[in-house]
Amino acid sequence: MDKNNIKIGIIGLGCRGISMLESCLIERDHLTFTAVCDVYEDRMEQAADIIEKARGTRPLMFADYHDMLKAGIDAIMIFSAWETHIPVSVAAMKAGVAVACEVGGAYTLDQCYELVKVYEETKTPIMLLENCCYGRTELMVWNMVKKGLFGDVIHCEGGYRHYLADEITRGEENRHYRLRNYMNRNCENYPTHELGPIAKILNINRGNRMVALTSTASRQQGLNEFAAFDKGADHPLASYPFAQGDVVTTVIKCAHGETITLFLDTSLPRYYTRNFNIHGTKALYTEDNRSFFFFGNERHEKNHFNWEKEWGNEKEYRDEHEHPIWKQFLEDGVQGGHDGMDWLELNAFFDALVNGKEMPIDVYDMASWMAITCLSEESIANGSAPVAIPDFTNGMWTMRKPQDCF
Amino acid sequence: MDKNNIKIGIIGLGCRGISMLESCLIERDHLTFTAVCDVYEDRMEQAADIIEKARGTRPLMFADYHDMLKAGIDAIMIFSAWETHIPVSVAAMKAGVAVACEVGGAYTLDQCYELVKVYEETKTPIMLLENCCYGRTELMVWNMVKKGLFGDVIHCEGGYRHYLADEITRGEENRHYRLRNYMNRNCENYPTHELGPIAKILNINRGNRMVALTSTASRQQGLNEFAAFDKGADHPLASYPFAQGDVVTTVIKCAHGETITLFLDTSLPRYYTRNFNIHGTKALYTEDNRSFFFFGNERHEKNHFNWEKEWGNEKEYRDEHEHPIWKQFLEDGVQGGHDGMDWLELNAFFDALVNGKEMPIDVYDMASWMAITCLSEESIANGSAPVAIPDFTNGMWTMRKPQDCF
Repeated sequence: MDKNNIKIGIIGLGCRGISMLESCLIERDHLTFTAVCDVYEDRMEQAADIIEKARGTRPLMFADYHDMLKAGIDAIMIFSAWETHIPVSVAAMKAGVAVACEVGGAYTLDQCYELVKVYEETKTPIMLLENCCYGRTELMVWNMVKKGLFGDVIHCEGGYRHYLADEITRGEENRHYRLRNYMNRNCENYPTHELGPIAKILNINRGNRMVALTSTASRQQGLNEFAAFDKGADHPLASYPFAQGDVVTTVIKCAHGETITLFLDTSLPRYYTRNFNIHGTKALYTEDNRSFFFFGNERHEKNHFNWEKEWGNEKEYRDEHEHPIWKQFLEDGVQGGHDGMDWLELNAFFDALVNGKEMPIDVYDMASWMAITCLSEESIANGSAPVAIPDFTNGMWTMRKPQDCF
Repeated sequence: MDKNNIKIGIIGLGCRGISMLESCLIERDHLTFTAVCDVYEDRMEQAADIIEKARGTRPLMFADYHDMLKAGIDAIMIFSAWETHIPVSVAAMKAGVAVACEVGGAYTLDQCYELVKVYEETKTPIMLLENCCYGRTELMVWNMVKKGLFGDVIHCEGGYRHYLADEITRGEENRHYRLRNYMNRNCENYPTHELGPIAKILNINRGNRMVALTSTASRQQGLNEFAAFDKGADHPLASYPFAQGDVVTTVIKCAHGETITLFLDTSLPRYYTRNFNIHGTKALYTEDNRSFFFFGNERHEKNHFNWEKEWGNEKEYRDEHEHPIWKQFLEDGVQGGHDGMDWLELNAFFDALVNGKEMPIDVYDMASWMAITCLSEESIANGSAPVAIPDFTNGMWTMRKPQDCF
C-alpha cells in the first residue's frame, strides 16, 4: 500500500456515501477512489461522475462487492444498507482489504461472532466509523473522566433522539433501508451514536464489559400520523402496521455494576439530542442543558433549587478541558460533515491504517456495540426479558488495558 | 364530622411531619389537632408544644397509633416511616378514620391488595399526598395534554433525581428511615413524585393501566464516598455494603403500549430534577431544559440543530395554558411548602373529605404507584426480569372514565 496513494473502493452511494465521498475528494489527496459499488446503476454512475470530475479518472464500477474486492483496492469504505455492513466487512477482511465501516446494528449474534473470528484469523485492519466518538463534547467529557474529575462513572444515559419520520416514510422514493427496517423489526436499531462514547468512557472490552440488557418498546404511532399528514390518510403508510415502536428504552448492566440507559426515539416530533449523560461519584454532565455539576463546587451546590442558572456552563470548562485533538482542530479550522466529527474519524482510520496502529474503534467495539440491536430485538420479543451480552473478546477483556483518550 | 372543626390525628413527627403541622396550624383554621403519635417521646412533645402554643390546647399523645385511632379523630395525617404507611392506613380505614398519607413505596404486593380491599369494604376516604401531582409544570402539561396539544402521549420519563447522600448517611443521628432502607434494600424506593403526574396523564386505572416492568440497579458507591468525605474513612458507613444501587432505571409498559422510564438517582452528586418528559405524537416537554417542542411550529423546527435557543420556552406558554388552580393560586399568592404543592394537595384532600367528593389521588392510584417499589425489588433480585404489575381495580379500569385534570 502506497500511503500517498491509497486505493479505495467505496460501497453504498446513497446520501451518506456520496457526501462522504465528496468530502474525501476535497480533503484527502492521498486517497484514490479506484472503484465504486452499488446495487443501483444510477448511484454508481453519479459517484463515478463525481470522482471523474474531481480527479480526472473514472473509477471501476461493480454491482457485486465480491468483484470489487478483487480489483486491487487497499481499503473499502462501507456506506451501504445496514443489512450489508457485516457481510461486506467479513468478505473484505477475508480478501485482505482494510475496512472502514459506517455505523448500524447487527441482525444476528452469529454475524457478530463471525466478524470477530474473521478479524482474528486475518488481522485485516477494521474500524467502525462511529463519528460521535469524536464529538467535541463527548471527547471533552472523556478527557475529564480520564483526569479523574468525575470520580468513578457509575451510570450513563444516551439516546439517538432524532425525528426521522420524514426520512423513514420517504424510504420507497429514496430507496432507503430505514423504511423496511421500521416496517419489519422492533429493536434498538441504531445504538452506536450514543453507546460508542459511553463504552469508551466505561472501558468496555478493556477491563470492563457489557453483561446483560433489557429492552422495552412503546407502541408505534408516529410514522402513521406523519404519513397521514404528509401523504394523506389514504396512503398505505398512514395505516401500515409498522413493527418498530416509537421509543425503545434499553438498559445495559456492566461487569462492574455500571448501568447504561439508551433511548431510540426517532418517530415522534422532537429536537435532536444524543442525550449524553455521564454520572460519576464526583460529577454529572447533562447534554440536554449542556451543563456540568461538580461535587463540592460551591456555586453549583448553591444553585440546588435554581439550576437553570447553570444551563450551558459547559463552555466555561472548554479552555481547561477541551480534548487535544479538538484544540488542534479548532486552531486549524473545523471542516467536514457533522460538525467535524466525520473528518476526525476518517483521520483516525487512515492514520492507524498507514502507520500500522491499533484501530481506535476496533472489531471488539464493533461487534459488542452492534450486537445491542439484535439483543434488544430478542428482549422485546420476549416481553423485555433480560438477555446476556456475549463477551466477544473470549475473556481477553480482563487483560486488555484501558485505551488512551484517542 | 364538623367541617369547621375537623379533628386531626397526626402520626410521624420528624422533619416532614413537623413542617406540615406548622403549615396547617397557620393556614387551616378549620383543623383541630386533637392527637399526635410517634414512637419517639421527644418528637411527640415537640409537636404537642407547637400545637399548644398555636392553638392554646395541648393534644393527646400516643405511642401506639391503634390507641390514637380510638380517640375520636376524623382524619389521620401520616408522615411516619415508609414501612408504616400502609399498615397505618389500613388500620385507620378499618376504624373509619379518613386517611391523608404521605408518599413512599410498598414493601409487598400483599399489603397493596389489603389496602384496596379494606378501602372497598369500608369506603373510608383515603388519599395519597403526592404533592408533585400539583406541581405547576406538571399541571400545565396535563392541561395541555387534555387540550389535545400533545396528540397521543406515547412515552414518558421521570425521575427522583435528588442528591440525598447527606440525609441518608445522617440517618442514625436523625432517626431517619431512609438509612435502613438504603442499607437493606435495592429497588426503586421512591417512585411516586415522578410517576404520579405521569400516571394521571396516561389515565392509569381509568381506561389504561401499567402492565409490567423491568428494573436495573447500578452498583452503590456514592454513599460510601460521601460518608468517607463527611465522616472520615474509618466511619462504618464509609465501607458499609449498602444494598441500594446508586441509580435505578425502571421501565414500565402500559396496556395501550405507552412506556414510562423512571430513574431513582439519590446518592451521586447532582442538581434536583424530576426529569419530567412527556412525549406525544404532536409535542414534547423536557423538564431538564424547561422547553416544549411542537410539531409544525416553524420556529421549533428551524431550531433543529440549535435547540439551545428554545431552552426555557415553557414560560411563553403559561399565559395560555397555566392550569386554572395555579392561575387562581398565583393570584391569591402562593403559600405552603415545596413551591405551593403541599398547600394544593391538602386543599384537595380536605375539599374531597368535607364535600364527599371522590379523592383526586385514590386508593387505586396509591396501590398501583406504591407497588412499583416492591415490584422493582423483585425485578432487580431476578436480574432485571420482567414482572407483571397487578390490576388493583380487578378489571374496573376498562370502565372507569378518565379523570378531569383536577
